[in-house]
Order: sequence, then C-alpha cells, then structure tokens
Amino acid sequence: MTPDGRQPALIALDWGTSSLRAYLLGRDGAVLDMVAGAKGIMQVTDRDFATVFDEVTREWRRKWPALRAIAAGMIGSAQGWTEARYLSCPASVTTLADGLVSTPGGEMMIVPGIAQYGPSANVMRGEETQIAGALALEPGLAGSSRIVLPGTHSKWVSVENGAILDFSTYMTGELFAVLKTHSILGRFAKEGAVADEDASAAAFRRGIDAAREARDLGRLLFSVRALVLTGGMTAGESLDYLSGLLIGDEIASALAEGVPNRLTLIGDPALCRRYRTALAVFGVTDVGEVDNAAVAGLWRIAQANKLII
Amino acid sequence: MTPDGRQPALIALDWGTSSLRAYLLGRDGAVLDMVAGAKGIMQVTDRDFATVFDEVTREWRRKWPALRAIAAGMIGSAQGWTEARYLSCPASVTTLADGLVSTPGGEMMIVPGIAQYGPSANVMRGEETQIAGALALEPGLAGSSRIVLPGTHSKWVSVENGAILDFSTYMTGELFAVLKTHSILGRFAKEGAVADEDASAAAFRRGIDAAREARDLGRLLFSVRALVLTGGMTAGESLDYLSGLLIGDEIASALAEGVPNRLTLIGDPALCRRYRTALAVFGVTDVGEVDNAAVAGLWRIAQANKLII
Repeated sequence: MTPDGRQPALIALDWGTSSLRAYLLGRDGAVLDMVAGAKGIMQVTDRDFATVFDEVTREWRRKWPALRAIAAGMIGSAQGWTEARYLSCPASVTTLADGLVSTPGGEMMIVPGIAQYGPSANVMRGEETQIAGALALEPGLAGSSRIVLPGTHSKWVSVENGAILDFSTYMTGELFAVLKTHSILGRFAKEGAVADEDASAAAFRRGIDAAREARDLGRLLFSVRALVLTGGMTAGESLDYLSGLLIGDEIASALAEGVPNRLTLIGDPALCRRYRTALAVFGVTDVGEVDNAAVAGLWRIAQANKLII
Repeated sequence: MTPDGRQPALIALDWGTSSLRAYLLGRDGAVLDMVAGAKGIMQVTDRDFATVFDEVTREWRRKWPALRAIAAGMIGSAQGWTEARYLSCPASVTTLADGLVSTPGGEMMIVPGIAQYGPSANVMRGEETQIAGALALEPGLAGSSRIVLPGTHSKWVSVENGAILDFSTYMTGELFAVLKTHSILGRFAKEGAVADEDASAAAFRRGIDAAREARDLGRLLFSVRALVLTGGMTAGESLDYLSGLLIGDEIASALAEGVPNRLTLIGDPALCRRYRTALAVFGVTDVGEVDNAAVAGLWRIAQANKLII
C-alpha cells in the first residue's frame, strides 16, 4: 500500500517523442504517484529504453513486484523500444487491448497505433489511447462523436459504436513552429515586434476569418508578411494572424463535410481555448473537453487485457 | 570601347537577398561583361553597400566615367541600401522609371517594388523588373497576359495594357525548403531514401493529382509521411510527392478563376520544366518562357529614364 493506504494496481506510461510520464495507478485508476522527465524517445539517443524504464519505475516494482506496466505513444514506433505495428480502422478498446505488444524482456506492454490505408492514408500513435480514455470517462461519446486533439499534428477523429472509424491529420502546430522559426513569416517577431492582448486576439480572429472565407491557405500565407509591409497590420500582430490562418484552415477543412452539433477537445488547455474561439466562428459552440485522457485510456486498455492486479 | 570594339552604355545590377549580379551593357542592351558573387544584402552584414558597389563596378567606372548605374531587387528594401518604397498597381515601365530612387551619394538608381494594398495585400521587389523585361523582349505579352515566376515566393502576375494589374504570391519554394529541412516530412530523405528517375516523376505527378483533386493542402500534407508508413509510397518518393502537392496546390489556386489559353514562365530552367509538367496536368499546354528578363528589364527601365549614355 502507498502511505495513504491505497493499493497500486498498474504502472502506466505515456512515452512520446519528447517526454515520458510514468504513473502509478490505484485500483480505481486514480494516480497515486507520477514521474515525468525529458526521456522521450528522441532524447534516449543510445536507444537503451530498458534502462530508462528500469530507472523510472524501479522503486514501484521493488515495492510491488506483481505490478504490470503498459505504455502508449512513440515508444511503440519503429524508432522506439519495440515496434507495435499500426492496426486498421475501425479500432475499439478491444482491438487495442488484443493488439498489445510486449517488449522483448516482458518489461511492459505497448499499445499499437492505428492506421488508415489507401489514398486517405493516415496514422496515429498515442492519440488512440487518449480516445479510449475519453470514451471511458464520457461513455456518451462512444455511440457517435467527433473528437479533436489539437497540437503538433492535430487529429480529427470520428467515433462510431465505440470504435475509431476514421480520422484526419493537420500539421497545424508543426507548420506554425517551422514557419515562425525558419521562414520569412517569423522575421517580424524575431525583430522583437509584439502586440497587446486585444490586438493579438483581433489578429487571431482576422486570420480565422480570412482562412474561412478564402479556403486557400497557399494564397493567404504570404499575406502574413504583405499585410505588414503595406500597412494593413502591425508587425506584432503577424504571428497571431498566422495562427488564425492555420487553425482556421484546419477547421474549415475538417468541417467541409458538415458541421457537427457537438465536438470534444482533448489537449493542452491554452490551445483548447484557441480552438474554442475559432470553432465559435464556424458556429460550433457546443464544445466539450476531456482531461487526463491518456491515463484513463491506458487504464481502460489494461483492464481489457487483464493487466491490472 | 571594350576589347571587341563595343561601347558600354549602362551598368545594371540585379541585387537580391543572397546574390549580386552586375552587368556591363552595350548600346543595344547586350551584356558586354558580368560580375557575380555572394554579395546579396543578407551577406553584406555591415550594410556598407557603397563599398560593395564601388568594388564590383570600379573598373568599369574608371574606364567609362560617364556610365550610369541602375539596380533592382532587395537592395531597395528597408534592409537594403536605400529604400525605394512600393508603388501601387497598376504599374507600367513608365511608372517604374518615374519612381526610380537614387542612393544618397548618387551612385545608382534603384527600381521600386510594387504593392497591392487592402485585404489582398501583396508585394513584389525585383519581379516587376523581370516583367518589364519580358514585355520588352516579347511585346505581344503587353496587351493581356499571365506571367508566372516560380521560385521561393512564386508570383502569378496579370498584365493588361502594358502594366502589372494584379498579382498573387505563393510561398511554394520556401515551404518546400522549410518542410524538407525542418519538419517531420523531410525525415525519410534525411535517412538517405532516394527513388529512381521514373519513380520520382511518378511521385511528383501523384502529388499534383492529389492537390488538384482535393484542393485542401492542409489535409494532404501529412500524407507525405502517412503514405510511406502505410506502405502506399516508398520513402524515396516522398519529397517529389511533396513537391507535387505544393506546386499542384499553387496552380489549382492560381487557376481557380479560369484557365488561361497561354502562360509565360520566367525563372530557373529546371524549375520551369517542373511547372510545365504540372501545368499540363491542368490542361495548360501553351506555355512560353522568357530568359534573361531581369537584364532586359533594367535596360528598358533605364531607357525610359534616359540613364543610357
């Protein structure tokens, strides 16, 4: 038992590209202890993931040797510890639980990613576990729902009958980062230009409106610079306008086949606020949010595979 | 006179971000001598452009002291020697010639860039001179034509009655470069994946087709990676497919308001070949090409301002 008398039941790891979060979960799936660090698969340059796993979870396993471990994220990619190959859509919790892959030494089980094959090729790894968590936390989503995971590679996921039916990926976060850091569109910001909060919000909204109206990101991108050079926008507003263009184009594309009554967001709270603002421009105001979906998903998949002690 | 007996009449400089090309032109506008080097405005970190000008053109000015000099390109930007502010569209050769700006010491005259103001804000600097050159070399283009300058920031220009009426900018070349170098889409190529010539051409075509059909670059970008991960494309084909997506999306956007009977390209020959291939997919097969447009434009504008001795 832990100091507060609760009995651990599972070690759950959210092990991505740039970070590792390891959780000690109790019999009800609650977090009893947590270790986080910059031990994402890109940081483990010697690829000795077994040692990282041992160091991070040693204390828990020493105290409770019967504990099993489950992990989701890029640790299951070809660059990770053991590859857990993509499973096809539609994929339910049962699909994921049946597809768990063990590391060579049996240290932990890895949740496979899922894929769409053919011309609409797409892949996710890690998000499938967050979706499983969202369906566990909010069973009402399982019947038919649309779940959005904004971020580096935003995912728009259709859930039907408890399974991920199909999904799209938008590189919105990565596009913003590389354009800001490496393209001419980030130059004004690098020169120190900033805008106050109201101007930033207005510039973000202006970007959303432009993207929504034009549905032509390629033609609009250079306006981030041209508007400033022609006096139509201040230099400090340009990155918020760019953010609005990118998020607005993502939403316009994702909603092209119809605007759902309700959407559910999973992600960083500040980013989810930006998406709420943008979604409202498109008339989507019934927007739910699910927290801690990754932990809930790892728990739910472990339950389905009887990994919980 | 030069050694072959021809009389110089003008010094013309194509002075951009990353390179400087200085030409000694004869009475017919022909190139008598040329100096090229990495003296673009970003390389002249001390911003002592007067010294660069002096070094590059000294010999010519010593022999022929009456020669005047004219320059176009980023040397006229706020980061250049002397700012030659953007003039409004529509802009003809006369507009450009009347708008020439002298450097403080009278060393040379700089061609202004041109701009569109308002919500379709756009700017060009350097391309206006290439357009002027194209109209001089091919007078048939002056009445009504569509000129495309593919590159880092591709320009699609409508010419009417000898003037640039309006234009669009697509960051196609820069997008390709930053996505290849700095995003996850370039990772397969960095790992050394290559395709043979036929496979590259087919992947480029596949990207064009996908962009043309979907008209949704944001949704398609991640397929550059997902197609490889799902076995739908080899890693070595991914960058040609990305190139096809970007160029295809550019053309689809630019032709959205109608497909012209004829287009004229100005730019790097290898890049123009890629655009010809892509344009053919869109049914545009009457595609002309103009070489050495910058020199011809500098000559034409200098003529209109009586800078030629």
